[in-house]
Amino acid sequence: MQDSLSNRKFDLTHYLNNKRNIIDQALSKIIKTNFSDCRLSSAMQYSLMASGKRLRPVLCMAAAETVGEINDDVILASCAIEMIHTYSLIHDDLPAMDDDKLRRGKPTCHIQYDEPTAVLAGDALLTLAFEILSDQPSLPKNAAIQLQIIKTIARAAGHKGMIEGQMRDIAAETVSVPLDELKRIHHLKTGALIEASVISGALLAGGTPESVIQLKIYAGNIGLAFQVIDDILNVEGDAAKMGKATGTDASRNKSTYPGLIGMEKSRQFAAELINNALHALDIFGNKANPLSALAEYIIKRER
Amino acid sequence: MQDSLSNRKFDLTHYLNNKRNIIDQALSKIIKTNFSDCRLSSAMQYSLMASGKRLRPVLCMAAAETVGEINDDVILASCAIEMIHTYSLIHDDLPAMDDDKLRRGKPTCHIQYDEPTAVLAGDALLTLAFEILSDQPSLPKNAAIQLQIIKTIARAAGHKGMIEGQMRDIAAETVSVPLDELKRIHHLKTGALIEASVISGALLAGGTPESVIQLKIYAGNIGLAFQVIDDILNVEGDAAKMGKATGTDASRNKSTYPGLIGMEKSRQFAAELINNALHALDIFGNKANPLSALAEYIIKRER
Repeated sequence: MQDSLSNRKFDLTHYLNNKRNIIDQALSKIIKTNFSDCRLSSAMQYSLMASGKRLRPVLCMAAAETVGEINDDVILASCAIEMIHTYSLIHDDLPAMDDDKLRRGKPTCHIQYDEPTAVLAGDALLTLAFEILSDQPSLPKNAAIQLQIIKTIARAAGHKGMIEGQMRDIAAETVSVPLDELKRIHHLKTGALIEASVISGALLAGGTPESVIQLKIYAGNIGLAFQVIDDILNVEGDAAKMGKATGTDASRNKSTYPGLIGMEKSRQFAAELINNALHALDIFGNKANPLSALAEYIIKRER
Repeated sequence: MQDSLSNRKFDLTHYLNNKRNIIDQALSKIIKTNFSDCRLSSAMQYSLMASGKRLRPVLCMAAAETVGEINDDVILASCAIEMIHTYSLIHDDLPAMDDDKLRRGKPTCHIQYDEPTAVLAGDALLTLAFEILSDQPSLPKNAAIQLQIIKTIARAAGHKGMIEGQMRDIAAETVSVPLDELKRIHHLKTGALIEASVISGALLAGGTPESVIQLKIYAGNIGLAFQVIDDILNVEGDAAKMGKATGTDASRNKSTYPGLIGMEKSRQFAAELINNALHALDIFGNKANPLSALAEYIIKRER
């Protein structure tokens, strides 16, 4: 990856570090302003600052840069999306759900605190995301765009998006599902919020309808690729690098890409998806270098 | 209650039926438009349409009528608030939380479905509430008000409002808390969202800042009164009328008003709160008849 990136003179490691710093600082500021000295705030902070990849915020900011510039509204939306992602992980990890004890290399929220606190910390992060998204924008005329973004994110995260994906994912743990259903689950569970991240960044940076359509195609493809790679890493990833247990899908008889079409075809499929994503960026030229590099990062990631 | 209401020629029963019809129809329309034929939607609908009192939507609409008229935006906000209230009940009832098996006379969501479905149905109702609140308003200039309402509701429902109230409520189940902390818990757990309901209705109907302040005082007082009465009903209410188990606070050694200051003083305190609430409505004259009647209804309710 290093070679292909340096060929086009784009340093992804530097870019990722820079963007993660921006998001971590913005999240820290929100925590400082909003959180109190109580168990609930402590649990919210614990999960939110547990050194996640910050993929969705980075994609949101990179999409903004592809069509314009990163402004304060883009950063706030990135923070809100990361909160929604974090809440979904806290609830997914609950004993009644996936019953995971390790996440991002640390005990999951209900292990570190307790189950009621984890349920409520998840609820509170989801609610805080919308509180943040409803900040009045710098320009009054942007209020309508802000509402559009709240709708986009709520739809992606809701009962026809991420949450329905989680429902279907649970069902797929006991019954083997066909490939089409697996794609649908992955699109809902991961793709929808990744799409919303990219669309939000583009809209808040003044992207045209045409650019938003292309970015949506990009996001749909990398979102699915991300999940295919997740399945592959669950089989052959390094638990220490990933910060969570591996081999769990097989032990649960969960339907996965490697399980349905084999490891080799799963890799080919992920590569095709990444190619589709890169192709969708053609209209942006060099402005899309960060998004291109991110697509390649997703397929080559080890955690 | 019938007498005092007929004296002022206001028929609360008729008013409540009428407003509940409006909200039930609006919720049914949202369900028809938004829900699919799947287990998640089914669970969301099951809890949302389980013949609740619809107190918060009625208060939202009554506040709108006190300062102006009920418009489509008021009805949508009422629906969203009822969704948030319903999600909070679903999560409160979970085995890890209050572990309740009966709610509104029916099995709780996790009993009727299962625990993962109940967690996700709650998450989905919370998310759908914000999706609905982000509908573009009829007049573009109202977008800023819409954002203000999303913020008001998110704050009331979030980690400094209802969810923090639930955290403190859980803590108060094992340790006896002083009266001030009990008031604080009740304000957070119930009062905050009731305040937000009234404020949202008033703002969306064009209420002046002064009228919003008075309505907030009204709401703060009836919110606390509602919870005091809830505690009283838990001791001496009729489980059949209430549609949920009674006597549960005592068996859990939970701090309650009757437990801390006795039944008689609890009743007096509730009556004082209702008087404060009625006093705050003075500036509105007859326009506030519905809100006055609702305050009296809260203190005399049997479920």
